[in-house]
Amino acid sequence: MSPRILIADPEPRTIASIFDPQTLEELRSLGEISLHADGSRLSATELESALEQASIVIGQIDLPTDRLCRMPNLRGIFNVEGNFYPNVDYQFCFETGIHVLNASPVFATPVAEAALAMAIDLARGITETHESFRTSQEPWGPNSNSFAFDFTGSRVGIIGLGDLGSSLRKMLQPFHCEVKVYDPWLSPRRIREQNCVAVSLDELLATSQIVFVFAGVTSDNENFIDAKKLALIPDGGVVLLMSRASVVDFPALIAELKAGRLKAGIDVFPQEPLGGDDPLRAMKGVILSSHRTGGMNTAFLNIGRLVVADIHLLLRGLPPQNCKRAERETVSRMRSRPLSKVMM
Amino acid sequence: MSPRILIADPEPRTIASIFDPQTLEELRSLGEISLHADGSRLSATELESALEQASIVIGQIDLPTDRLCRMPNLRGIFNVEGNFYPNVDYQFCFETGIHVLNASPVFATPVAEAALAMAIDLARGITETHESFRTSQEPWGPNSNSFAFDFTGSRVGIIGLGDLGSSLRKMLQPFHCEVKVYDPWLSPRRIREQNCVAVSLDELLATSQIVFVFAGVTSDNENFIDAKKLALIPDGGVVLLMSRASVVDFPALIAELKAGRLKAGIDVFPQEPLGGDDPLRAMKGVILSSHRTGGMNTAFLNIGRLVVADIHLLLRGLPPQNCKRAERETVSRMRSRPLSKVMM
Amino acid sequence: MSPRILIADPEPRTIASIFDPQTLEELRSLGEISLHADGSRLSATELESALEQASIVIGQIDLPTDRLCRMPNLRGIFNVEGNFYPNVDYQFCFETGIHVLNASPVFATPVAEAALAMAIDLARGITETHESFRTSQEPWGPNSNSFAFDFTGSRVGIIGLGDLGSSLRKMLQPFHCEVKVYDPWLSPRRIREQNCVAVSLDELLATSQIVFVFAGVTSDNENFIDAKKLALIPDGGVVLLMSRASVVDFPALIAELKAGRLKAGIDVFPQEPLGGDDPLRAMKGVILSSHRTGGMNTAFLNIGRLVVADIHLLLRGLPPQNCKRAERETVSRMRSRPLSKVMM
Amino acid sequence: MSPRILIADPEPRTIASIFDPQTLEELRSLGEISLHADGSRLSATELESALEQASIVIGQIDLPTDRLCRMPNLRGIFNVEGNFYPNVDYQFCFETGIHVLNASPVFATPVAEAALAMAIDLARGITETHESFRTSQEPWGPNSNSFAFDFTGSRVGIIGLGDLGSSLRKMLQPFHCEVKVYDPWLSPRRIREQNCVAVSLDELLATSQIVFVFAGVTSDNENFIDAKKLALIPDGGVVLLMSRASVVDFPALIAELKAGRLKAGIDVFPQEPLGGDDPLRAMKGVILSSHRTGGMNTAFLNIGRLVVADIHLLLRGLPPQNCKRAERETVSRMRSRPLSKVMM
Repeated sequence: MSPRILIADPEPRTIASIFDPQTLEELRSLGEISLHADGSRLSATELESALEQASIVIGQIDLPTDRLCRMPNLRGIFNVEGNFYPNVDYQFCFETGIHVLNASPVFATPVAEAALAMAIDLARGITETHESFRTSQEPWGPNSNSFAFDFTGSRVGIIGLGDLGSSLRKMLQPFHCEVKVYDPWLSPRRIREQNCVAVSLDELLATSQIVFVFAGVTSDNENFIDAKKLALIPDGGVVLLMSRASVVDFPALIAELKAGRLKAGIDVFPQEPLGGDDPLRAMKGVILSSHRTGGMNTAFLNIGRLVVADIHLLLRGLPPQNCKRAERETVSRMRSRPLSKVMM
Repeated sequence: MSPRILIADPEPRTIASIFDPQTLEELRSLGEISLHADGSRLSATELESALEQASIVIGQIDLPTDRLCRMPNLRGIFNVEGNFYPNVDYQFCFETGIHVLNASPVFATPVAEAALAMAIDLARGITETHESFRTSQEPWGPNSNSFAFDFTGSRVGIIGLGDLGSSLRKMLQPFHCEVKVYDPWLSPRRIREQNCVAVSLDELLATSQIVFVFAGVTSDNENFIDAKKLALIPDGGVVLLMSRASVVDFPALIAELKAGRLKAGIDVFPQEPLGGDDPLRAMKGVILSSHRTGGMNTAFLNIGRLVVADIHLLLRGLPPQNCKRAERETVSRMRSRPLSKVMM
Repeated sequence: MSPRILIADPEPRTIASIFDPQTLEELRSLGEISLHADGSRLSATELESALEQASIVIGQIDLPTDRLCRMPNLRGIFNVEGNFYPNVDYQFCFETGIHVLNASPVFATPVAEAALAMAIDLARGITETHESFRTSQEPWGPNSNSFAFDFTGSRVGIIGLGDLGSSLRKMLQPFHCEVKVYDPWLSPRRIREQNCVAVSLDELLATSQIVFVFAGVTSDNENFIDAKKLALIPDGGVVLLMSRASVVDFPALIAELKAGRLKAGIDVFPQEPLGGDDPLRAMKGVILSSHRTGGMNTAFLNIGRLVVADIHLLLRGLPPQNCKRAERETVSRMRSRPLSKVMM
Repeated sequence: MSPRILIADPEPRTIASIFDPQTLEELRSLGEISLHADGSRLSATELESALEQASIVIGQIDLPTDRLCRMPNLRGIFNVEGNFYPNVDYQFCFETGIHVLNASPVFATPVAEAALAMAIDLARGITETHESFRTSQEPWGPNSNSFAFDFTGSRVGIIGLGDLGSSLRKMLQPFHCEVKVYDPWLSPRRIREQNCVAVSLDELLATSQIVFVFAGVTSDNENFIDAKKLALIPDGGVVLLMSRASVVDFPALIAELKAGRLKAGIDVFPQEPLGGDDPLRAMKGVILSSHRTGGMNTAFLNIGRLVVADIHLLLRGLPPQNCKRAERETVSRMRSRPLSKVMM
């Protein structure tokens, strides 16, 4: 009998946004699909029945203990939003060997390339000069670069060397930067293998001209880059805030920008959308981005490809290799967060 | 007897802008320096005497045949501005084995990194979104990327694979782009060695989403990227104009931008500075840069390092390896140009 | 209280062979060590007590269900021999979140570099020519390369893209080979990410000039490269047998060598040591290696470093990142094998 | 009128050995070919007439001043043997802008890949172990690697960073070696650009575990690696002698091998072929190669491709970019050598 695949509550994703026709075709070839998504909803009875037969669940449907107990065939749960939510009994899954997965790696490349462009831009003053053209005040000649520094060969710090940080690190290769990394969840060996130097947060901040903040929020790290930490960054430093606004003391960052001491590229804000009269809108030395660096249509379509690639493996009795696995040790720490939509 | 090194008419460079103290020290260790530069000018007699003894000339001083005939020790002439001017009798130099060199390779890295940032920016809509924050009109959510495309994996065309193009090509490595090159002065073998595909100009334009224009102006190629050529670029394409404005039919490019069909990053203009009321200043889909991507202080200081490295070689009877050599075949074509200051 | 670390039955490793003084020091700083190894054996009572308190076990001591049930603090079991043996109740460990790990990744680099050298050697006829010098029969001049082919640009196949295959793949980068991979346990996406083409075993064999066999033995694959498969390899092909002799029909391989149709580098044999009068010893077109490509002292000392790096993580409540994890899906298949000492 | 291309005295090459049919076709499309080669010889009169009309000469025909004076169209002379011989009036060529070129870059890759294989082999004891199998004396188990060291991460020295050394350097990239270079003809900047450290010969020898000798013979450097220099190499060091035997004091090298202090891969000998009873033939710790690492048929066929690529350029009035140019400063030093056939 063909395995059953249930797509349930994939919101905010739609089927069409994450599966291109060819990938959907491939998914169909792997099992019989039940759809509880988009306009197509199952009745409560149908849904329970679909759950009970499912080998695979795709979506963010609640899966508490009692439901999981009634799902004997279940091998994998794919969150297609990008985070691990506390609506799944992870402990049950770990004990029984059900993989809980998310497709967040798809966002790494688009976020990293945008972060790189912003970092070079801020080092070299590209957008700042461009904006001065708008008011016919752009500098020409020798003074036009007085505030600029070379990105090539600069001292770079990366806070958080997960998928995103690793993606960026590869993009830095041609620029011969010395790259320092702070990542308390990562083994120094793994950091060195990526040709980075593992350092403390303080050392990273005190010695980097450009600081990429890719850390996700955990139960431990809210506002861990506070005013005191920001003060460690040398004058003229550049901060790229790409993951979650709440890892930084945001008002302290704004104060540094206002003082003209630091520059920043900001893709995430404490409140989104940003207030219409927020002073950031008029500030210099900043590039503002509306939490949009990850959300490319191509990234969303890659979700489907990653999911199907891992379903292939799971149904053949092999471990998943493409999506990100929930891990016993860390999922609980991530779960304890109020959930916003990181890199949605 | 110690070799004589004459620094004469290095303008627009000053000694301090191209030689840091350590490099100047190193230069002094190589020979006895005569200075006809900055505030320190030689009398006509002193100058002639310095020329007659010089093994090395650094600067853009006129060196017509009769002068060169009186310079028996001369081994190398270093243009520190960045171009080959028609004020040297090149033919005489080629015949007698005097190397004529310029230090233009120093500009390759800073221009390339800026061009890369602009290209990613235009593909992803970074500056455009940033500017919309200024008027509180930025898009959030799914629509925020409707006009964007991934730089990673995009189809890139490079027109002119000299120092600058080669520098950029290396920076593209992590992005897995297919890179096509049009360079009529370069052997297809050399293009392939840099992991690019050698194509005609028309094929390049018709198949690239992003077109980097790095071609210098020669006796043959003024306006060679005209309206008809620009029309070949697919809708939504991005043009980076980084070398010389006059290789492109500038009004035709503006028309494409105005129509919203293409986007562009522009560092060079037909007239510089750009007129205060030029319509470009108000246009969307463009990043404007005041001919400043090459002119980093660090680049100027690298001129001195390149020059000293090659003087070392020349005075030991070895061929130069760091600066760019004037070549019999090509210098005449470059010379025939009205000279502006490319990437000064 | 300090965590307890039990080193028990690490044989065939000794403490000194896997821990250099500095790593041992680091291990000591992580917990209190009990030693049941080398000359230092615990009494049965002491051993049971040490097990009961252990947070970490290093070694191949039997850990059946009943023992594991008495080990409430246990977080990680480190096999330092290099394989997963059936003397641990893996199911229990998976359910309760105990990581079972081995340090086999340390062997990847030394085996890969040796395999590369052998492959180039066989393609170019290096050892064969060298041996002909011994009998003064070496060829000189144009005929000296009649039987050789370039390694650079050759068509390479890799069977098994685990740690070892991945290591080799990176070493192939400068040689511009087209690399095909057959690995039924690996997702095609992961294969493509390593810049390889995922193909069937038959296609790999039929199109590769050089075939690296890195596959371990599983419950499914004994002798899976049989006479018929070997016959697919084009004339003059080169086989590198580096992982386990029993994945290949060894007599069939010998027959191909004897016929002069294929060449081979062989590091593993059905019976080790190889019989003193084995005909392989006199055969041409072969490089013989006494199961020694992995067993470098430096590799053994890296075992200790990997183990300590992961103990660091485990004791901080983080998942291991350096050693290889036993996986529910695959460990059972590997366990079902009669165990020999692969890459000891 | 179609340009005339004269192929004269290409020996030891034959037309068929350096031009595959497609390349020959391409050559024919570039001009009218006269053949004074292989079985097809011109009469003295015909030859003089062909010379007088030739735009391009391919081959090692004598071109003294008087002949060159009668060749008004000549733009390029292509030596297809691989060296610059003193049978051309180079001075005349430099003065008049005739390029003298050779195709030696084609040998870089095949020599480098063979040198790499030999270096790994000697570090790891591959051939030595293999040979011990022949007499059933191979070591098994822990002792089998007692004399081996890892190639990955080893300290490497390269003497001569020309085409060959550069090729090898790229192949070292995956091995994370620290690479030191001694090359008195090369600017330290160029050495650093290839990610090497420029050092003195003594420092290189005293600190490298593996020494690649790629230096060609010049008027200055015969036997420059003498007994005293060899003694600087640390015990257990490996020497790869790949370019010209006469740069090394050969008897001193043999003495080191005999003493078991160094190991070596040797592709070039003071006398070739090597004497039938030379003691080297019985020595341990050596890999012997009959001056064959460069002479691959594929390399010879690349000669034609390089030559044709540059003729394309020359006939379009562009400088050559693929073959190696004779340089005023260095050709005279190379010319002063008695000529043997390096890397023929």
